[in-house]
Amino acid sequence: MNKRFVTFLPAGVKVEVESGTDLLTAAGKANIEIKAPCGGDGTCGKCAIHLKNGKAKARRESHLAARLMEKGINLACQTLVQDEDLVVEIPKTSAMSKHQVLVDSSPVNAGMSEALSNYLLNVWQLKELLLEKQESPLNGYPLHPLCRSIRLTLPAASLQDNRDDLNRLTMVLRKETKCTDINVPLAIIRDLGEILRADNFKVTVLLSEVGGKAEVIAVEPGHSHRPLYGIAVDIGTTTVAAYLLDLEKGRVVDTAGTHNRQARFGDDVISRIVYAVDETDGLKTIHQAIIDTVNNLVSDILVKHRAIRENDIRVIMTAGNTTMAHLFLGINPKFIRLEPYIPTANFFPVVKAQELGLRVNPDAPVFSYPSVASYVGGDIVSGTLFTNMGKEDAPISLLIDIGTNGEMVLGAGDWLVTCSCSAGPAFEGSGITFGMRAMYGAIERMEIDPQTYEVSYTTINNGRAIGICGSGLIDCLAKLRRTGIIDRAGKFQTSLPTDRMRIGEAGPEFVLVWQDDSDLDRDIIISEADVKNLLRAKGAVFAGIRTMLNVVGFELDSIENVYVAGGFGNYLNIPDAIAIGLLPDIPVQKYKYVGNTSAKGACMALLSQEAWAEANNLASKLTYIELSVGNLFMDEFVSSLFIPHTDLTLFPNVDL
Amino acid sequence: MNKRFVTFLPAGVKVEVESGTDLLTAAGKANIEIKAPCGGDGTCGKCAIHLKNGKAKARRESHLAARLMEKGINLACQTLVQDEDLVVEIPKTSAMSKHQVLVDSSPVNAGMSEALSNYLLNVWQLKELLLEKQESPLNGYPLHPLCRSIRLTLPAASLQDNRDDLNRLTMVLRKETKCTDINVPLAIIRDLGEILRADNFKVTVLLSEVGGKAEVIAVEPGHSHRPLYGIAVDIGTTTVAAYLLDLEKGRVVDTAGTHNRQARFGDDVISRIVYAVDETDGLKTIHQAIIDTVNNLVSDILVKHRAIRENDIRVIMTAGNTTMAHLFLGINPKFIRLEPYIPTANFFPVVKAQELGLRVNPDAPVFSYPSVASYVGGDIVSGTLFTNMGKEDAPISLLIDIGTNGEMVLGAGDWLVTCSCSAGPAFEGSGITFGMRAMYGAIERMEIDPQTYEVSYTTINNGRAIGICGSGLIDCLAKLRRTGIIDRAGKFQTSLPTDRMRIGEAGPEFVLVWQDDSDLDRDIIISEADVKNLLRAKGAVFAGIRTMLNVVGFELDSIENVYVAGGFGNYLNIPDAIAIGLLPDIPVQKYKYVGNTSAKGACMALLSQEAWAEANNLASKLTYIELSVGNLFMDEFVSSLFIPHTDLTLFPNVDL
Repeated sequence: MNKRFVTFLPAGVKVEVESGTDLLTAAGKANIEIKAPCGGDGTCGKCAIHLKNGKAKARRESHLAARLMEKGINLACQTLVQDEDLVVEIPKTSAMSKHQVLVDSSPVNAGMSEALSNYLLNVWQLKELLLEKQESPLNGYPLHPLCRSIRLTLPAASLQDNRDDLNRLTMVLRKETKCTDINVPLAIIRDLGEILRADNFKVTVLLSEVGGKAEVIAVEPGHSHRPLYGIAVDIGTTTVAAYLLDLEKGRVVDTAGTHNRQARFGDDVISRIVYAVDETDGLKTIHQAIIDTVNNLVSDILVKHRAIRENDIRVIMTAGNTTMAHLFLGINPKFIRLEPYIPTANFFPVVKAQELGLRVNPDAPVFSYPSVASYVGGDIVSGTLFTNMGKEDAPISLLIDIGTNGEMVLGAGDWLVTCSCSAGPAFEGSGITFGMRAMYGAIERMEIDPQTYEVSYTTINNGRAIGICGSGLIDCLAKLRRTGIIDRAGKFQTSLPTDRMRIGEAGPEFVLVWQDDSDLDRDIIISEADVKNLLRAKGAVFAGIRTMLNVVGFELDSIENVYVAGGFGNYLNIPDAIAIGLLPDIPVQKYKYVGNTSAKGACMALLSQEAWAEANNLASKLTYIELSVGNLFMDEFVSSLFIPHTDLTLFPNVDL
Repeated sequence: MNKRFVTFLPAGVKVEVESGTDLLTAAGKANIEIKAPCGGDGTCGKCAIHLKNGKAKARRESHLAARLMEKGINLACQTLVQDEDLVVEIPKTSAMSKHQVLVDSSPVNAGMSEALSNYLLNVWQLKELLLEKQESPLNGYPLHPLCRSIRLTLPAASLQDNRDDLNRLTMVLRKETKCTDINVPLAIIRDLGEILRADNFKVTVLLSEVGGKAEVIAVEPGHSHRPLYGIAVDIGTTTVAAYLLDLEKGRVVDTAGTHNRQARFGDDVISRIVYAVDETDGLKTIHQAIIDTVNNLVSDILVKHRAIRENDIRVIMTAGNTTMAHLFLGINPKFIRLEPYIPTANFFPVVKAQELGLRVNPDAPVFSYPSVASYVGGDIVSGTLFTNMGKEDAPISLLIDIGTNGEMVLGAGDWLVTCSCSAGPAFEGSGITFGMRAMYGAIERMEIDPQTYEVSYTTINNGRAIGICGSGLIDCLAKLRRTGIIDRAGKFQTSLPTDRMRIGEAGPEFVLVWQDDSDLDRDIIISEADVKNLLRAKGAVFAGIRTMLNVVGFELDSIENVYVAGGFGNYLNIPDAIAIGLLPDIPVQKYKYVGNTSAKGACMALLSQEAWAEANNLASKLTYIELSVGNLFMDEFVSSLFIPHTDLTLFPNVDL
């Protein structure tokens, strides 16, 4: 195979690749991340690059790519290295770099939304976390870390007490830990004799205890008083956050967040699974991407804490959805996506950091939050733990986490049911003409004058509007209905006396922001098709809630608490969400925003064996309702495609 | 560092080494084994080589080396590569090569003893083993192998049964195995989804079960009927034997034996420990040597069974003394040698073959026989298992394995005591002027005419005599005493009317074989110093037996069986051994030769979970008596330095 050099500007990074390699892959090799939500299929058009020097070959498989090429724009994923070295410039709109976004927040367009929104989400997450540093992350559980160090003075060896060293150690550990099963790995046994004698049989033993079994992680001579650190990781599909915990003090020391480096293989779990399954070495590549992401976060944190070395991090806990857990451990996720949607594992083995290539102490055990089903993952179990829904005296509560899927848990104490409905990515901005994630310039609140149909709005950070984020879309839907611009079925009233109402290329549309007021070169509109997409998304969530209630035989008004989790929940206007029929019509004060419960639960489990035991208990206890079985969900869904619902008695307080 | 080439003749192997390297190390690097019982200290003089070309540097640290250099003989261990490439010839007397011995059995001298004896021991072991192929190696235990394959048909995944794949598998395994704890390693989980579906949820699961815990070794699609193989390894200090077992049929398929490649670092466990502890990378090197030994044996066997691949070997069981177990697993053996003689471990973790670099299925679990103490190892536990001494209705029995150490077990059913006495290597031929191991030309039986003092003898394979092996030495001692050549204290009667009695360089000596009848250039003699060495060796063994009886309050005549184990026992003349006071004076028919119990026990454990459970039970149950505590042993030892003993009432049937 011939090898050619590709130089990427503006970074100036040069990489050697085989001819025939596409530029998206080449960029990945150069560690330059280019956006590719479609996973390199040539369908999203987001990986546009400029070819500055050298001739390349176009794949010409994609219609979009061909059309763009006419305009002199090449898609990285559809451009192949041929017989010449290439110089390629990555426009800011295609780059996915935290640093670039940091220094350059000026003129952005909708094409940049992910990069920015990732960054901003992180900033907000961080703010939330840093606040939490002031309080205990234990959430009521006792400080009893999953990994702890015990200082022991063993009986010295003598002719009278000539037990072997391993026995000498494990006998004492059995008494100290109440664990009957003590595992000491060979690597530690190999030099145990010297270690025990280095300080006259005084040792510090580091171990993790789970369910009556103790795994010895390290044995060090003397009574060491070094602090003990662990890393909790929230592995989100879009963003990943790491928390450095002082296990003895039970405190968050520092945090870092970034986008998931798997993003270049697709935006959502489905495209990640497709990549992992269909591409050569896809699973390996995508597994490595998340490992790299975590390693980078750890090193980002450690660079700020020079007294703490990689080796001092002795345990890792991760929480994420089922697909993320599979990919993190390198487990083939193929069957998650195929009916009957079976994950390979819901409970994951504890592995050593070195097995995964994590750059912390090589012997650190890596725990993964258990899942319940293919689309109810460790993040939801974590949320259930955090909200105490499984506690004996818990009132009937609903936990809801809306993303591409709406994952929900309903229950109280002993009974807990859960389901996942495919809400689609509408609330995340995809499939909506001017949809975007929450970032600078995203419309987040909106009012429409019922007389003049004039629109007033606020954007995130008060930037000039460039699109609408999820919370803005919910607001928008509520106001469109309230002002009669759309009917209960989402149909546009095209006869309204305002030039904001017009027929666009794709049918009826309503202008939210005129071009002059926006930061774009066109008007920001919402179309009838956008509205239908939103109705499907909100309908799926509400139908999921109704189905769960139906299965357990409760009514909406029996719900005492609604916990809204996840990034999206943060910006949600609850009354509007109720008004459009996304959330049940119960008193607003019963709604509680619980934030990033995935991260919080991961921290709790690391700091408290009791919390970890309960997380595992919850994962077993949660009864999964498969919505695709029977007609229950589909009937509810069809009834939910109206604003707020076909059955208005379900929304007695909504007057739209 | 400068690099130089060393060419070894007659093999013609060339190797590049750094200047400053000694030729013993260089030979090791070239995979050419040179004898060095002293471990390269320049004290045994056995690694003599001829420097044919090039100038080398002499270490000149060793007195012996200096003296030999005067005669133009270089010791490999004391000769350093300098600024020139070297050509070195290894004389047959220094080479340690099975093949060489095989093709060249003509003129040998005492210097060759180890090489030959190793080989011959192997031949005999093999013969013994091959015979055993005709009968079951189970020795009464049920065939219930430590590793077995189960053919399962799992409930198929569906929307109604949407448990995760891992759970689907483990639920069924729990029922099938009665194990509550089923461990499936991540490597297997990673592709479990595909494996379960490859043949519609029919799978063959390979697992090992120990004490209610099952470790899954492999999961294969469909109902495979491939045979299941394991390797049992007897890791002796001198020789190593491997047994390929068909686990489903419960049969030995084939065997191979060779010398332990660690031999170049010293003959006995003490010199091995010294090498491992004192040399740079000593432990790593000596650990690798035994791994290489086992790998070579496995490939020697597999080359004869082409249908069986490395990957088909799914489990390994090893038995050896405590030091061998430590070195096999790479555990620092340092404290075995130092008072209070503490091994790092007596019970060893099960590890994967790949962790040790064993060339069988990488996931094969490797089990190691448990030890009791530093000098009572897995080989003795194995022997105790084989002799059924721990069975409920067992009569009081004595198990005795004589080598450099005399290891003994005394007991019946519930009570079992064990000790190890340092007999020294006299019975193995070391420290005796013409001592040698059992091999061609070794005197194994001897008569001395009480009138003429003429000696008649038989040698192994009827070769011309070159020395005396252990059984010959015991015979010799008995006959020297019976004919009055020595007194009860081992003192020579120098006034006897025969020219065989004379004063040599080292004091009184008796000529056993005149030069003309020997295959040497001198007379074969036994000296008074030799006799004293033998008395110490036999005294230690008998004192050990007496001490154990003393501790448990029994007399010699309560012993119902004496099991004589190990290579040496094979050739032992029991009446002579009793006559000199090595073995207790009980009826000869109570003595039973049990052979290589270490190997037999390893096979048993591999074929029967019940046998393995009992082996572990025995290792816990055996009460170790430390002979260096108190005066009991020393008093007994001093009384045992006479023929047969100071207390003649202990040997009522001996009339010497």
